[in-house]
Amino acid sequence: MDSKNRHELNPRVSADCVIFGFDLNQIKVLLIEREAINGVEQSMALPGDLIFEGENLDTAASRVLYELTGLDEIYLEQVGAFGDPNRLNNPKDQLWLKAVRQNPTERVITIGFFSLVNMNNYEPQPSSFAKSAAWIPLEDIDELAFDHMEILKASFAKLQHKIRIQPIGFNLLPHKFTLSQLHKLYEVILGRELDKRNFRRKMLKLNLVQSLEERQAGVPHKPSQYFVFNEEKYNELILHGFDNFGF
Amino acid sequence: MDSKNRHELNPRVSADCVIFGFDLNQIKVLLIEREAINGVEQSMALPGDLIFEGENLDTAASRVLYELTGLDEIYLEQVGAFGDPNRLNNPKDQLWLKAVRQNPTERVITIGFFSLVNMNNYEPQPSSFAKSAAWIPLEDIDELAFDHMEILKASFAKLQHKIRIQPIGFNLLPHKFTLSQLHKLYEVILGRELDKRNFRRKMLKLNLVQSLEERQAGVPHKPSQYFVFNEEKYNELILHGFDNFGF
Repeated sequence: MDSKNRHELNPRVSADCVIFGFDLNQIKVLLIEREAINGVEQSMALPGDLIFEGENLDTAASRVLYELTGLDEIYLEQVGAFGDPNRLNNPKDQLWLKAVRQNPTERVITIGFFSLVNMNNYEPQPSSFAKSAAWIPLEDIDELAFDHMEILKASFAKLQHKIRIQPIGFNLLPHKFTLSQLHKLYEVILGRELDKRNFRRKMLKLNLVQSLEERQAGVPHKPSQYFVFNEEKYNELILHGFDNFGF
Repeated sequence: MDSKNRHELNPRVSADCVIFGFDLNQIKVLLIEREAINGVEQSMALPGDLIFEGENLDTAASRVLYELTGLDEIYLEQVGAFGDPNRLNNPKDQLWLKAVRQNPTERVITIGFFSLVNMNNYEPQPSSFAKSAAWIPLEDIDELAFDHMEILKASFAKLQHKIRIQPIGFNLLPHKFTLSQLHKLYEVILGRELDKRNFRRKMLKLNLVQSLEERQAGVPHKPSQYFVFNEEKYNELILHGFDNFGF
């Protein structure tokens, strides 16, 4: 963003983005680092910034994500608004806001967005006030700037909820994956062990995955078969609903 | 709200409330009427207003709802933020904003909230700028002020989604209800016919309703048995999840 445009920013409303990835072993989150202010290191943060006056919320979220991390054409879903009146009042956060904002003490309500991506396709390219941007393991994140921990937790709760009623997890996987990788993904998102045989049976029964002839190569164990997500079947299931009551 | 406090309002952020009720026949929505401005009648609107500077979003929504309709101690769930830059630009809406707001052309982002209530317990008591407040049948609502149709639609979509995975519909019913009334509720929310026998069987199988000895009195047909919602069973089911995949 050109800094000359910053006076066109809405000083009261921002957008923050939670981008989840999966490295076939753990869930990761795209975070940015900022420059230290007066020698005080800043906590890592979600990619986020004020919206422009004439900008839709969705557009703002996409723009901010692109400006800070280079990620483009990502489908972002709104998680909700976060408006604790004290959300910017941490002294370390105030130090940073005083360096970058015209009205650093002004209350800002932020709109949180989240997305699930195949992280192999997205090498972060930091710019604007992001000194760096990197995929950080979710379980290593215990402090973030502002109220970003709250936004992250709400987004992860949404992911946990959604994966139980919709097969959204496939967005986190490479195009070709093994059932073991899919199983691992569900285990790390739900935070508990799932019986491997039951899992496999259920997934195959839903017809949501389609087997390929191809098998893994160069692995130190018996090579597993590759699968792809069956989008056609998915769209069919959506029409009929994934609901539990079965109406 | 004392008008002397209006300068403490956040000019950029508001809260709007969608309150659903069910009269055992159709879904209704709590709407307010406002005074005509210069002879121009205003469309009906969701109860909503600007938030105060030091106020949490949830608190603001509850306060605004109470001030305009008298409804108190209602659990409000956030639907999301609505921020189309043109959401206040309709000439009729501008006429009203010019009469009540200091900066009528200022862009306002609104946070939508929704709730399901047993409407028998809530007789609206309009005050502040609400000339009247009334339960209006959802299917009769085709025009509202600002972007309130969009907020209403998003809230109803959320209700339709949630009722398929959680038994939230019970919040809309009186304490005692018949299975026919419950069946009707699901039909009007989902917008299609549901086989009565199947529905009854599923509901009883889930153990979510508990039969009473009592039957209807003074009805022109064979009196039906009354049921109550089984909250204990519900909490048990929540722990184990209503998920379709069954993990």
